[in-house]
Amino acid sequence: MSAIAFARQNQQRFLDELKALLRIPSISTDPAHRADVRQAATTLAAELQRIGMENVQLIETTGTSPTGHPLVYADWLHAEGAPTVLFYGHYDVQPPEPLDEWITPPFEPTERDGNLYARGAVDDKGQMFMHIKAVESLFAAHGRLPLNVRFLIEGEEEVGGEGIAHYVASHPANLQADFAVVSDTHMFAPGLPTLCIGLRGMIYTEIEVRSARADLHSGYGGAAPNSFNALAHILSRIKDESGKIQIPGILDAVLAPDAAELDSWRSLPFDEQEFRESVLGSQAIVGDSRFTLFERLWAQPTFDVHGIRGGFIGEGAKTVIPAKATAKASMRLAPNMTATDTFRRFSEFVQQVCPAGVAVEVRLIHSAEPSLIAIDNPWIRAAAASMTEVWGRETVFVRSGGSIPIVGDLQRHLHLPCIMMGFGLPDDNLHAPNEKFCLQNFHLGIESILRFLESVASRKSAS
Amino acid sequence: MSAIAFARQNQQRFLDELKALLRIPSISTDPAHRADVRQAATTLAAELQRIGMENVQLIETTGTSPTGHPLVYADWLHAEGAPTVLFYGHYDVQPPEPLDEWITPPFEPTERDGNLYARGAVDDKGQMFMHIKAVESLFAAHGRLPLNVRFLIEGEEEVGGEGIAHYVASHPANLQADFAVVSDTHMFAPGLPTLCIGLRGMIYTEIEVRSARADLHSGYGGAAPNSFNALAHILSRIKDESGKIQIPGILDAVLAPDAAELDSWRSLPFDEQEFRESVLGSQAIVGDSRFTLFERLWAQPTFDVHGIRGGFIGEGAKTVIPAKATAKASMRLAPNMTATDTFRRFSEFVQQVCPAGVAVEVRLIHSAEPSLIAIDNPWIRAAAASMTEVWGRETVFVRSGGSIPIVGDLQRHLHLPCIMMGFGLPDDNLHAPNEKFCLQNFHLGIESILRFLESVASRKSAS
Repeated sequence: MSAIAFARQNQQRFLDELKALLRIPSISTDPAHRADVRQAATTLAAELQRIGMENVQLIETTGTSPTGHPLVYADWLHAEGAPTVLFYGHYDVQPPEPLDEWITPPFEPTERDGNLYARGAVDDKGQMFMHIKAVESLFAAHGRLPLNVRFLIEGEEEVGGEGIAHYVASHPANLQADFAVVSDTHMFAPGLPTLCIGLRGMIYTEIEVRSARADLHSGYGGAAPNSFNALAHILSRIKDESGKIQIPGILDAVLAPDAAELDSWRSLPFDEQEFRESVLGSQAIVGDSRFTLFERLWAQPTFDVHGIRGGFIGEGAKTVIPAKATAKASMRLAPNMTATDTFRRFSEFVQQVCPAGVAVEVRLIHSAEPSLIAIDNPWIRAAAASMTEVWGRETVFVRSGGSIPIVGDLQRHLHLPCIMMGFGLPDDNLHAPNEKFCLQNFHLGIESILRFLESVASRKSAS
Repeated sequence: MSAIAFARQNQQRFLDELKALLRIPSISTDPAHRADVRQAATTLAAELQRIGMENVQLIETTGTSPTGHPLVYADWLHAEGAPTVLFYGHYDVQPPEPLDEWITPPFEPTERDGNLYARGAVDDKGQMFMHIKAVESLFAAHGRLPLNVRFLIEGEEEVGGEGIAHYVASHPANLQADFAVVSDTHMFAPGLPTLCIGLRGMIYTEIEVRSARADLHSGYGGAAPNSFNALAHILSRIKDESGKIQIPGILDAVLAPDAAELDSWRSLPFDEQEFRESVLGSQAIVGDSRFTLFERLWAQPTFDVHGIRGGFIGEGAKTVIPAKATAKASMRLAPNMTATDTFRRFSEFVQQVCPAGVAVEVRLIHSAEPSLIAIDNPWIRAAAASMTEVWGRETVFVRSGGSIPIVGDLQRHLHLPCIMMGFGLPDDNLHAPNEKFCLQNFHLGIESILRFLESVASRKSAS
């Protein structure tokens, strides 16, 4: 039986196994779920062992990792001379809050209208599990694997844990490969096979303003500095109302997309009003009008505030001048920018625009480098061809406005091209209530990966 | 025996009775303390009855009051032709949190270094109780009262309850008087008799910005509107970094203090560095440098942000573009401004400066009118003379940067001049841990009130 036939025959079992994995609330940011995160790791390790992978192990990460959730590693390296693929995915998930907005509970996976609803369904348990099921199907079809395979699955992606980055940087020999496959992105439109060739980087920061030793009665307003007023002034200076970053030197570093890529973006099937309405859910699309929408999303830096801690947020009124205000805020970095340089310029600018009478401190919580891969890279071309075959439509090349730190790390430390073969959809509610994964995409995703691996198995490894 | 002699002879008993009242945790904002709030009211009613007051009653407030704690009313109206005084105070207190910062527990009144430490010691149980003890002393000395007296004591001051405002507006005949005495302010310095003749008003608002139907992944940054970025832009526009209000028309309404009052402020014993260090606890004194510090605190409007709800404020990093951000923010109003006009201009300005792509709503949570009374008002002059006599120093006239809504209500609906005779001290820790009341101020406060009442008893009532 071919690998694809095996995958098709086992669709229901694959789905049931995914549901079992989704029932584990492996929320990496929440210390109360520490045991659940570990249970997800051990469940995956057992599954990798079961399908025939070797050297299965949990790798405890050290260094600056704030949470210490283990990496799951496995390999099968007996296809001499054939290329080696490194599969990357993550088994941790975002917190499910606000719980009352979920139609069915986040950790009770539920099928509805051709989708599977659960926290982690698409980000990233469902997509990561496709890799395992593709490899299981290859084992079943061939009795062995036609190429060498490594898995490296992390449990700190949603908390920006640096354990995996340290491991990649310090153990390059253990991860030697010809290319990596990462399925943590989405298709440009339903049914349209999509390869993501560029990612923005990020600096995630905290900006803490202190205006006094302790909170004050607001009767002193007019003479007492106010940490929240000062923070609002700082935040409003970083990007102007049109969306243009005001930090000197930042925009100079940005690598503009070439004419061919801009052309290909123009030909993508895209309805701006539909995007605004169903994806953004906003009144308007905003941003720096000197750039097209795709440039703003994929090829320009930005600045977003995520929340502000401190002060009084209860019911009613409390007339307080808060002594401390802390914003969580991040910048996305365009290709060619670096996290180190951007954070330095960002911090300096915040100090410069800080109003008199208050002190401000800027902390870097985590960072990710931007990345970009050429459309004519041979692994990219093979992946595109396999996806075109499975989906019956020409594969398109896009970028993502988000960040996947590991992609930058794999490029930097292992010189691996990352094939970002994602099967999510734009309306999958990542990081939000009612996260879902399209059932057809789960199954065709497995077939796409299968075909891609079979198509490159006969190539010579470069290593 | 004279009233003063009686008061001096009974100092210890007066203090013990105050301690009993302070032991009742009448925290009006906390539904769990509802019965305690009522017990404070019934305790006061019993005490008013005991000293000889008549028509003692609890008045249940209705209308928009969120909490429904009763007013305590009592009167004695047999001094025909003599003036009538209306005493106002409040028997509710602020929550005591953070508890671990109290040296002795908030509801176990403790004497230390000449002070009485307890939640409510000075704000306002201790000061309100001075009125009752002054009236008790007059009864003891004269066998009757030399003037007519009404008490109106509320239980919702610390929650901005509007029950008393509704009662005052709808029952003016029940509260007819020649002047009111309010003891909810503080002396300018220890031992310095002080009358507060002006208060700022306030509009307390919520500014809610909505940028999308639901939270978004920040990978859409650069094209998706962000409620927090937009809110920061709005907040930063209301007051510039120098502290000057930017809302058109607002500053035109402000009544500038006259030269005589400005002169008197210059002669107050005041060390700006000491104020910055021990009262504000800030690096600097800020604000509109066209005005002196006292003008900024007492005679100019301001704008302060109290907190911002929404978004992600947990540990670590969540890459979210929050759909909704809600700021609690207030303006203090200078004399001659009105809450209605200020809120209208404020709302219009917020709409005007709201960035494209988001919707903003401004809600009024509560308001208070500013108030000002002339230094040569005859009741003020009598109060000043009595205080000068008791304290042995010339009484000074100040204003407060805070708001006491009832003062505006009594002026507006009953046309009563309010004699704000306060005996707190600047370091009494109102609304904070280790609230205290200076024992000497409690006793001399009773004597000040006594002398004031005796000195005006022979005047003819205007009514």
